[in-house]
Amino acid sequence: MPFEPPEVLLLGPGPSPTSVVVQRAQSLPLLGHLDPAFVPLLDQVQARLRILFGTTNALTLPIAGTGTAGMEALVANLVTRGDRVVVGVHGVFGQRFAEAVRRRAGVVVEVRADFGTALAPDAVVRAIEAGPTSLCCVVHAETSTGVLTDLAPIASAARAAGALFAVDCVTSLAGMELAFDQLGVDAAFSGTQKCLSAPPGLSPVTFSPRALAKAASNPDPVPFYFDTKLLTGYFGPDRAYHYTAPISMIYALAAALDLVFEEGLAARAARHRDAAAALRRGLAVLGLEPLVPTAYATPMLTTIRYPVGIDDRAFRGHVRNVHCIEIGGGLGSLAGKVFRVGLMGHGARLPNVLRALAAFGDALTAAGVRVDLAAALAAARTG
Amino acid sequence: MPFEPPEVLLLGPGPSPTSVVVQRAQSLPLLGHLDPAFVPLLDQVQARLRILFGTTNALTLPIAGTGTAGMEALVANLVTRGDRVVVGVHGVFGQRFAEAVRRRAGVVVEVRADFGTALAPDAVVRAIEAGPTSLCCVVHAETSTGVLTDLAPIASAARAAGALFAVDCVTSLAGMELAFDQLGVDAAFSGTQKCLSAPPGLSPVTFSPRALAKAASNPDPVPFYFDTKLLTGYFGPDRAYHYTAPISMIYALAAALDLVFEEGLAARAARHRDAAAALRRGLAVLGLEPLVPTAYATPMLTTIRYPVGIDDRAFRGHVRNVHCIEIGGGLGSLAGKVFRVGLMGHGARLPNVLRALAAFGDALTAAGVRVDLAAALAAARTG
Repeated sequence: MPFEPPEVLLLGPGPSPTSVVVQRAQSLPLLGHLDPAFVPLLDQVQARLRILFGTTNALTLPIAGTGTAGMEALVANLVTRGDRVVVGVHGVFGQRFAEAVRRRAGVVVEVRADFGTALAPDAVVRAIEAGPTSLCCVVHAETSTGVLTDLAPIASAARAAGALFAVDCVTSLAGMELAFDQLGVDAAFSGTQKCLSAPPGLSPVTFSPRALAKAASNPDPVPFYFDTKLLTGYFGPDRAYHYTAPISMIYALAAALDLVFEEGLAARAARHRDAAAALRRGLAVLGLEPLVPTAYATPMLTTIRYPVGIDDRAFRGHVRNVHCIEIGGGLGSLAGKVFRVGLMGHGARLPNVLRALAAFGDALTAAGVRVDLAAALAAARTG
Repeated sequence: MPFEPPEVLLLGPGPSPTSVVVQRAQSLPLLGHLDPAFVPLLDQVQARLRILFGTTNALTLPIAGTGTAGMEALVANLVTRGDRVVVGVHGVFGQRFAEAVRRRAGVVVEVRADFGTALAPDAVVRAIEAGPTSLCCVVHAETSTGVLTDLAPIASAARAAGALFAVDCVTSLAGMELAFDQLGVDAAFSGTQKCLSAPPGLSPVTFSPRALAKAASNPDPVPFYFDTKLLTGYFGPDRAYHYTAPISMIYALAAALDLVFEEGLAARAARHRDAAAALRRGLAVLGLEPLVPTAYATPMLTTIRYPVGIDDRAFRGHVRNVHCIEIGGGLGSLAGKVFRVGLMGHGARLPNVLRALAAFGDALTAAGVRVDLAAALAAARTG
């Protein structure tokens, strides 16, 4: 019997739901990674990723691997043993960024904020200015908390200090407009399974000429797989063999990019904001409180506090098993205290918001909490 | 307009053609990587990969990345700065293995053989015994030449010397029967796009308890992405988050494994041998000479010398453009001198052999060489 997945609406922190157009693209017959019919598709994918990042960086490509592989690619190329690296840590993905730098023998200066609060840009700026900083790493949209980081002041300070600026935009890419060249971002990585709504397994990355200059002069050897010089061989004009690119995933990414460009990035960003706002209106009626104020919350991911007495496993189990909706639990210090709702890419739509609110209201009812679910749905759909 | 790939028969060194069953599996809707409906599928994939490797190693899993990512995972965990590492180099993939070890600051002792010749096991054994060897790395089926390596004597010598033994089985896995536990292989990596006939983008890897002990005591930090301790978190009994697994690729791999186990590994290995033998019978009639004698040739990949006066680009261009068949060129010192024909997984079938021979005969005719193509096809199909 071939595997038949149950129909689960993916409203967790990723993967997000994919359009049938994207699903179908993966089922097209394979081509070779050097085939003359495949190369123009890869050209187009790379060109469109540049637009999403807001960059003209030549070395912009989908790494074969998850978002974490993209993080490794940045860190491996941009960190030299002993480099002073300032890392913003206000969630699990900031912790991972710092950990990856430490494993490259970088000297990490962590700038911390409590999980769920915003990273104070001036604290990061002070840390950059407090020593000879070679790199600053920040998470743009912290998937573990749903907090958005104000990149501009950090980018300016990094540039002024002669440091490179590297950004984790796993959850923000294609869900909001990015202008990384204008800001002064030197390297960034993302994933396909969030606002791009392609399957997990590719990590779009971009390296500025300044970042590549650092990589080229890095005395520490870079793992073969992530070496920008070797990646440039295949993902540059030569199209020389580096590794066998994941053809069917690139088909899926190309189809997902078709949908992004059909919709337009401004409209897509507005759709994400609208879906998040509808969710928040409904949550308010249900008495469910978001962890993060709208002012610095990510529109694509909303983290919600459990009311006193609501058990995480029971709540998420009810939502998954009775309503067939995946949502995420809390990570790190937030485990058991919050749940996370992703309205990302193809999933960021009012019908999904209403379905999620109905499931949350029912899970509260099952736990003995009285809610006015009709009012919650009405509030969500009437902005 | 959505992308529509031309129909190209993939008879190069990979990717191999996939069954429609595998293609369709990728188009199933996504599940979360921690979903209760997904975990049993992953369990089954891991159990079946163990059978293909011929191992009971608990840590046997598909890494999110290409075969090269699997190589990095082995090297990153098993090499400590200054370790003496013996690497067999008789093709491009042996060179890459050595390069990856060097980038981890291992002290590489290369045991070389000319491209196209077999690695002499006794030379490797002598190199292992010549010093305190911590690791020996060998390519089982060298995709750049089509040479198969005799692993048994090397495995015994490595074990006797207290060294770990790591094998690149990218091209052999699922195309021949492997018994890595019995041989004494401590770690191996493969790819999905060869004899498994799943799309490229995953690397099946396996680590023995001895290999994991080395990794656990490795004083050099391992990149986050490849750390066996963290991989064990998700791919072990805890199923804890490490990264978002490439769901749709794992669907495809599961479907490909269904086909492998339906057919049976012995029958599948015989099919690969039969297809290679049919190809060689036809090539002989066409006057095309394999680079590697059958005695130590890989059945899944055959490397063929160009007759004097035949131009590589023109020949492969004719085969691709007129006959819609992808074959591979020579790599490294063999560039321009040979072409490579993969009859791997779903592709290892007599109709494909006949179609390939027809294309080769026609390409020779186009180059002004007289061939008896009818006799070649007849020779191929009558064993």
